[in-house]
Amino acid sequence: MRILAARSSAIGRVMDEHALIAQYFSLLTQGEPGAQYLANDAASLDVPYGKKLVVTSDSAIEGWHVPKKASAAQLAQKLIRRNLSDLAAMGAMPWRYSLNLNVPEYYGESYIAAFAKELAALQQKFALTLIGGDTTFQGTHAYASVTMLGLATQTHNRSGTQAGDVLYVAGNIGDAALGLMLIEQKIILPEMYHAALQAAYYQPEPQLALGQALHNIAHSVVDVSDGLMQDMAHIAKASNVQFLLDEAAVPFSKAAQYALAHDPALRDVLCRAGDDYVLLFTAPQSAQHSIQMLVDTTGVAIQKIGVAKNA
Amino acid sequence: MRILAARSSAIGRVMDEHALIAQYFSLLTQGEPGAQYLANDAASLDVPYGKKLVVTSDSAIEGWHVPKKASAAQLAQKLIRRNLSDLAAMGAMPWRYSLNLNVPEYYGESYIAAFAKELAALQQKFALTLIGGDTTFQGTHAYASVTMLGLATQTHNRSGTQAGDVLYVAGNIGDAALGLMLIEQKIILPEMYHAALQAAYYQPEPQLALGQALHNIAHSVVDVSDGLMQDMAHIAKASNVQFLLDEAAVPFSKAAQYALAHDPALRDVLCRAGDDYVLLFTAPQSAQHSIQMLVDTTGVAIQKIGVAKNA
Repeated sequence: MRILAARSSAIGRVMDEHALIAQYFSLLTQGEPGAQYLANDAASLDVPYGKKLVVTSDSAIEGWHVPKKASAAQLAQKLIRRNLSDLAAMGAMPWRYSLNLNVPEYYGESYIAAFAKELAALQQKFALTLIGGDTTFQGTHAYASVTMLGLATQTHNRSGTQAGDVLYVAGNIGDAALGLMLIEQKIILPEMYHAALQAAYYQPEPQLALGQALHNIAHSVVDVSDGLMQDMAHIAKASNVQFLLDEAAVPFSKAAQYALAHDPALRDVLCRAGDDYVLLFTAPQSAQHSIQMLVDTTGVAIQKIGVAKNA
Repeated sequence: MRILAARSSAIGRVMDEHALIAQYFSLLTQGEPGAQYLANDAASLDVPYGKKLVVTSDSAIEGWHVPKKASAAQLAQKLIRRNLSDLAAMGAMPWRYSLNLNVPEYYGESYIAAFAKELAALQQKFALTLIGGDTTFQGTHAYASVTMLGLATQTHNRSGTQAGDVLYVAGNIGDAALGLMLIEQKIILPEMYHAALQAAYYQPEPQLALGQALHNIAHSVVDVSDGLMQDMAHIAKASNVQFLLDEAAVPFSKAAQYALAHDPALRDVLCRAGDDYVLLFTAPQSAQHSIQMLVDTTGVAIQKIGVAKNA
């Protein structure tokens, strides 16, 4: 972990590398002695015997994954949760992560403080520990990348779907897209829907328990990040099948139903918009009972939305 | 691995996510079936039994770690090598890496192509395999982060130095700083020195073999990235010792000696400039013979530059 001192003299005070590490990041390594409080050249980890190491790496950039006006906390939330959603799709449990954080110099130390505070809350919620990374101060956009390490005894893939398998989605489609439209003032919706839709955009809920519970049940699992239609196509291509999608069965929240009632053309937009971070998976017909049990035990709504047939 | 299609319509052609992955990045995963050619949500890796997983994560940013005018190849070289140098300091061998690459949209696809080509060469040289990451097109600076995974049976740290230990440095100090001064036209030096100094800046040589050979010999190891004086202080602080530095013994290249002869005040600059990426380590007096054997077998020049005493 190396936080570089700001090189430009554009601000009055040069941020001190070691002071920033000590104040904001060192304690986020508690629980992983191999991180040595970020005071070594690298972390040294013991991967538990018998576990696979599951690795995913995604960024969250202002003006790209979140609007330019997003707060440090919102950027941190989106960053960590979208990485965790990839672990969920693999059926892995969260373990460790490294962080590369670039902040425009004029954002100042308060941005770092707010970002680190949100990381601490996320670590608590998801049993994560920071193990390394760096922080820099360049350009005009906050840019954060995480490499997330998970553990699993087995993992899901996209290629196992067979003709006759049922296609399921584990939550509503389109709320994140509506949340972004609200944030960007591109849609008008009753105020009662605002908080939930914006939360769907900034704080998607990675379905970690469901991803792990789907081992020995699902034939393929992805998270809906690119968009329902695109991610369905990813499974179809990898498994060499086609899907008969029951469009009327695609689940929408009350807020989305309200929006669709006023603008039916939105349906196609929402099914292609992405950022939903709900799991999309296939399972054989024979797994129907197991899946109903998962609905009962996890409380996650799981909707049958299609069937696979030969390509 | 997800390369996002460019969202702005500022350029005529929107770069296609899956086409870019297929063309430039998928084949860089060859050798690691768990990366599934970047067509899954995450990579699934089997860490060899008995090995520690060593993780480091550093960025290379235009205008920060390299000048704005650096080429894609130069950015890739600096990025991979500075991460590998951290593995060297840990005594680990390179294994896998993930990449987060952000490129200004107007750089275009040719920048991605040149970057990926250089990665292929680096993978060959250092026995590395890509396993994931993402690529985005935002802002005005190329910004690349790597999380590098290494393997080791044991690792070095900074805290093991004892009073009486000898301080060694495994290569010349200041060449990278002189290379940067040349690139930025802040110094005039004979042309015969230019190529080597610029290479020292853009393509530092990670001392991986030496780092591994120092197990059971060294008490502390770091790579000189912040600067000789600063990194020496890191060992001192972590080990609770002081160093008596023999300033006359600090090794300089012929080029640096030439520069110092014309400007003696440069010596202090070079000893604090950083980016040298040579190993700085301590070992007990009794290891002198072992270290001489290392010099003979690895061909790396190792210079005694000081002694540790109680703080």
